[in-house]
Amino acid sequence: MRALIKHHAGTELKFVPDHSVPSVGPRDVLIKVSKVGICGTDRHIWEWDDWAAGRIPVGIVTGHEFVGTIAAVGAAATKYPVGLRVSAEGHTTAWKDYNSRTGNAHIAADTKIIGIDRDGCFADYVCVPEENVWPVHAKIPDKVAAVLDPLGNAVHTVMAAGVSAKSVLITGTGIIGLMAVTVAKAAGASRIFATDVSPARRALAKKLGAVEAFDPRDNAWIGEVRKTCRGEGVDVLLEMSGAAPALNQGFEALRNGGTAALLGIFKRPEAFDWNRQVIFKGCTVLGINGRKMFETWYQMEELLLSGRLELSDIITHEFPIEQFKKAHETMISGEGIKVVMSVNG
Amino acid sequence: MRALIKHHAGTELKFVPDHSVPSVGPRDVLIKVSKVGICGTDRHIWEWDDWAAGRIPVGIVTGHEFVGTIAAVGAAATKYPVGLRVSAEGHTTAWKDYNSRTGNAHIAADTKIIGIDRDGCFADYVCVPEENVWPVHAKIPDKVAAVLDPLGNAVHTVMAAGVSAKSVLITGTGIIGLMAVTVAKAAGASRIFATDVSPARRALAKKLGAVEAFDPRDNAWIGEVRKTCRGEGVDVLLEMSGAAPALNQGFEALRNGGTAALLGIFKRPEAFDWNRQVIFKGCTVLGINGRKMFETWYQMEELLLSGRLELSDIITHEFPIEQFKKAHETMISGEGIKVVMSVNG
Amino acid sequence: MRALIKHHAGTELKFVPDHSVPSVGPRDVLIKVSKVGICGTDRHIWEWDDWAAGRIPVGIVTGHEFVGTIAAVGAAATKYPVGLRVSAEGHTTAWKDYNSRTGNAHIAADTKIIGIDRDGCFADYVCVPEENVWPVHAKIPDKVAAVLDPLGNAVHTVMAAGVSAKSVLITGTGIIGLMAVTVAKAAGASRIFATDVSPARRALAKKLGAVEAFDPRDNAWIGEVRKTCRGEGVDVLLEMSGAAPALNQGFEALRNGGTAALLGIFKRPEAFDWNRQVIFKGCTVLGINGRKMFETWYQMEELLLSGRLELSDIITHEFPIEQFKKAHETMISGEGIKVVMSVNG
Amino acid sequence: MRALIKHHAGTELKFVPDHSVPSVGPRDVLIKVSKVGICGTDRHIWEWDDWAAGRIPVGIVTGHEFVGTIAAVGAAATKYPVGLRVSAEGHTTAWKDYNSRTGNAHIAADTKIIGIDRDGCFADYVCVPEENVWPVHAKIPDKVAAVLDPLGNAVHTVMAAGVSAKSVLITGTGIIGLMAVTVAKAAGASRIFATDVSPARRALAKKLGAVEAFDPRDNAWIGEVRKTCRGEGVDVLLEMSGAAPALNQGFEALRNGGTAALLGIFKRPEAFDWNRQVIFKGCTVLGINGRKMFETWYQMEELLLSGRLELSDIITHEFPIEQFKKAHETMISGEGIKVVMSVNG
Repeated sequence: MRALIKHHAGTELKFVPDHSVPSVGPRDVLIKVSKVGICGTDRHIWEWDDWAAGRIPVGIVTGHEFVGTIAAVGAAATKYPVGLRVSAEGHTTAWKDYNSRTGNAHIAADTKIIGIDRDGCFADYVCVPEENVWPVHAKIPDKVAAVLDPLGNAVHTVMAAGVSAKSVLITGTGIIGLMAVTVAKAAGASRIFATDVSPARRALAKKLGAVEAFDPRDNAWIGEVRKTCRGEGVDVLLEMSGAAPALNQGFEALRNGGTAALLGIFKRPEAFDWNRQVIFKGCTVLGINGRKMFETWYQMEELLLSGRLELSDIITHEFPIEQFKKAHETMISGEGIKVVMSVNG
Repeated sequence: MRALIKHHAGTELKFVPDHSVPSVGPRDVLIKVSKVGICGTDRHIWEWDDWAAGRIPVGIVTGHEFVGTIAAVGAAATKYPVGLRVSAEGHTTAWKDYNSRTGNAHIAADTKIIGIDRDGCFADYVCVPEENVWPVHAKIPDKVAAVLDPLGNAVHTVMAAGVSAKSVLITGTGIIGLMAVTVAKAAGASRIFATDVSPARRALAKKLGAVEAFDPRDNAWIGEVRKTCRGEGVDVLLEMSGAAPALNQGFEALRNGGTAALLGIFKRPEAFDWNRQVIFKGCTVLGINGRKMFETWYQMEELLLSGRLELSDIITHEFPIEQFKKAHETMISGEGIKVVMSVNG
Repeated sequence: MRALIKHHAGTELKFVPDHSVPSVGPRDVLIKVSKVGICGTDRHIWEWDDWAAGRIPVGIVTGHEFVGTIAAVGAAATKYPVGLRVSAEGHTTAWKDYNSRTGNAHIAADTKIIGIDRDGCFADYVCVPEENVWPVHAKIPDKVAAVLDPLGNAVHTVMAAGVSAKSVLITGTGIIGLMAVTVAKAAGASRIFATDVSPARRALAKKLGAVEAFDPRDNAWIGEVRKTCRGEGVDVLLEMSGAAPALNQGFEALRNGGTAALLGIFKRPEAFDWNRQVIFKGCTVLGINGRKMFETWYQMEELLLSGRLELSDIITHEFPIEQFKKAHETMISGEGIKVVMSVNG
Repeated sequence: MRALIKHHAGTELKFVPDHSVPSVGPRDVLIKVSKVGICGTDRHIWEWDDWAAGRIPVGIVTGHEFVGTIAAVGAAATKYPVGLRVSAEGHTTAWKDYNSRTGNAHIAADTKIIGIDRDGCFADYVCVPEENVWPVHAKIPDKVAAVLDPLGNAVHTVMAAGVSAKSVLITGTGIIGLMAVTVAKAAGASRIFATDVSPARRALAKKLGAVEAFDPRDNAWIGEVRKTCRGEGVDVLLEMSGAAPALNQGFEALRNGGTAALLGIFKRPEAFDWNRQVIFKGCTVLGINGRKMFETWYQMEELLLSGRLELSDIITHEFPIEQFKKAHETMISGEGIKVVMSVNG
């Protein structure tokens, strides 16, 4: 089969036209891939930064966002039939620890991720455990179904915080931050504020539903947001930048008793004023990782069926997998936001 | 002052041009009334049914939905200045019991309601305890501010159940049921289904955001709703009819583990199958009364500021208070939905 | 192997010394049974009442409460090794619906129960899907591990309601009601009240931690409980009797805004006053079924490790399986409370 | 009246035999003080550290933990009669902001605290707004009622985190940490672990209910706690030390998806690894301040009525107010834990 593999401990990927199809274990499902999405993580892998060098096994097929069709099922797999259109949760686990057995498998201690720790979906076929399969609703087009993984990050963050009838601040409108704007609006946020250094991203955030989008390099916006929110601050902070100054600004803008959900990954530990930002204010802080397995996936389906998610301005480009180089460059350059590659369909 | 009083133990109200202005206690606030809404409860009072005859003291000024301006404050009242545009929560309490002291004063054991247990707002002036005052946001017009009380019933029900990214069934689209449709949509419900015997109300429910509205006299809709909701049923039931068959249908349409919020008042106790409807299904049932004091009011403000509430088709008529007879008849006949009377403005 | 089977459509069970050992599917686990518990459900099966006649397939091995040791695992089973001491959740599901995939498999739509819908544990061996296995902590003795299923009903009810620092009323102190007394105390209930018609059960409830236990045939206790609970009523009602009068009494004793968790199964639908008992009071009602898979099991383990559960007065008798007739009669007569049978150990 | 006042901008307090009794506003209550507790905050005031110098107005009566009897009520105060035995919440607010009006007045933006921002209770009389009064249950002795304020800190922390049937780690067993041990046990924690540098405090923590108490200077305990908690870590962290290393150790010992409640105040901002400690683990962090007004007070009453709180080893000393110097020195030296002063009774 065709596959993109991390062929050496360095930059880029290699297109291999005749990679072997994954073998299907008794409880696995083999999926013929239709479309895939390129994640920010795939950029790290492409650029082979320190994180990638320390985590990615050379030789694997990368990619973890996809939609496809079940091509074969293992001998003991019983849940889903061949031919079903599916996506899959990329986090695998043995389903044995506390979190796996209580509805929180997304934070299982033994998580392995497809396209990162094991072969992924940038190929004609990908193999996942049966438990990871997500049947895709007929009304959701392939282009959207290919990016349920990152959309799920946004939905998980928004739904964990709870935004219904609440004012919301989103610090950082990269791909997932932008998704969070449209998700938060569809999920019932009353007023959405955003911050980003990029004027283009701020403009898009407003188009997607933000009341106002601010350049975080000037602190004045904090007072403005607090004032318009009863002089008290926003109800909810969604931190999506992984930048320490954004985190602090976000907490300054958050009202006493507000909720902060943190998805952005920070480059390094930095000083944090717990007293001022969290303790005296009586705030709640939620660490967000992955997608709830599978509550988030059900929420995504409902939000997509609502017809209120605006993803057409976020999924900006599509290339055939053979143009993987151009696809990655389009994403890395910032010219594209979410870039999809078509594999079979 | 002008006032509508329940002048005798029988039907209708009497317009009195020279009623005495309420005296203002040390912790009270006197409000000059701008506009008022006529509630379903006011219909019971007008028609003097058994409930009204057993509860309403003859001689009181009726009415409990209003907006106005603070005209005077008591000697020990310190919170709000004269001239402030305000509405007020109509449930009064001594703020001494468990619920009053823990954010749930709406279910205090000693609740007295203006316009029902004590003088109300169908008059030039109404007097309420300072704690009950709600400053109205400048962006909310008087016509809407006059009906925050019933809107609050809808918001309380919707928010208690939690509808964000969930499918919702509303059984009964009277005034509050219709409000619940637009509130649920604004609060993030993914798909809203409604039932009502009136074709006009069903049409309006769809206009306000319901995916489908069914005539409950034919049970077939239950299977249809269950099928479209993964074959499992809706996530949330909002019971707004007070009709036992609607309650049972609602539970039939509710998925295992779903949440039902009950606002409709039932005429009499009727047989209920706890095993089938609640216990085996692992459902949660919430009794809803009034509005949370004051969480619901904050939620209302946010929802109104979102610009997503559609109330113009619900607030259908406005009359000067002198035409109170026509106003009540318009509401009682069903020609109007929510009818507002202007008093001063 | 030895097995107790429902040999004909009538009363009692039949001891079969040479029943065939269950065949082990690829994802199944075969468990050699050490001890089993006799459930109230087993009484229905023994007595062959209407429910049993309508549900139980003649010919199956009955019993669903047990502890044992893994004797063999299926070809595709990977989670647990042979030799591990285990119990198992008796509710099986295909793990495909909303509840199964979101931490609530106990209310899956397709649930089949061992010993009721398929072969159970009153035998030398029982076979269950790998996902149902629960490894038993070394500090929990077999006699207790044999009854984790009913203990789980009590724990699920108590934990769903939330009893920490709350006053609790338990209506009905049968086996699970008595377990609920000790569980509620261990889980942090401040004051526990109980009702039961049996003086012996009331005495035992008090021994296990109830402040007071009342005979429900005299209503006076309701006022007494309300008075001692701030004049407002108890915070939490745990309904464990399945008797309509107990349900109504329980709601009368419950404070406004309180929570009722219903585990008892009612004989038939009976009239219920929603307005008075739930809506005007703003109460929350929870339907409880089975045990959360597997949150309840973790909670049980913690509660048992706390050393605060008092089960020695509840597990009153133990017989070898060959004395199954005496075992069942001891339970049915009320002489015993929880009766255990030893199979292998 | 007798009063202890902060007489100059420096160390210690001054005993004044003839201070003027506070004047009673129309909505205030004057309370004759029976007993008072000395808080850690009072130590800062006594020693006049930077915090105290920046916050405390010279000349005020200090002290904020007390029990007494209502001596007089303001002209517009209606809730409580003269002669009632009461304590009071020390945080005052105008009850106008979001948190005040939704059951979270403890984090109101305009909070002023008695004995810190305005005259306190180290005197024959103290004056508080009527809303702050807490009637003390007859079964709670004065010695305990005098320290409901710090006990409330412990109860708020424990109840916010939720400990029922959960394993709990308490980092730091100062006065409130020790109270948290007995509170957590009474509230249903299954297993409590504690850390403290003081052998005496560790011994007391174990006496009060901790399974084990560790010296945090050797990290080995973290692995031990994780191992005994299914190899995953504790369910709940209660941070009560205000020491950055304890915070980090606490998070290391906390399982994925666990909850941390932070009460301890940190000396300065320090580097924190959000990725490792919170985000990847999917943890929840709660900032805790004061006591919920008044949910915490009700919870305290219930916990005290349970008879399970062990406070006799924590309230170690009692002195007449005239021996205030010895009382403060006993507390500051660490010879005493919680020190009470008797004023009138």
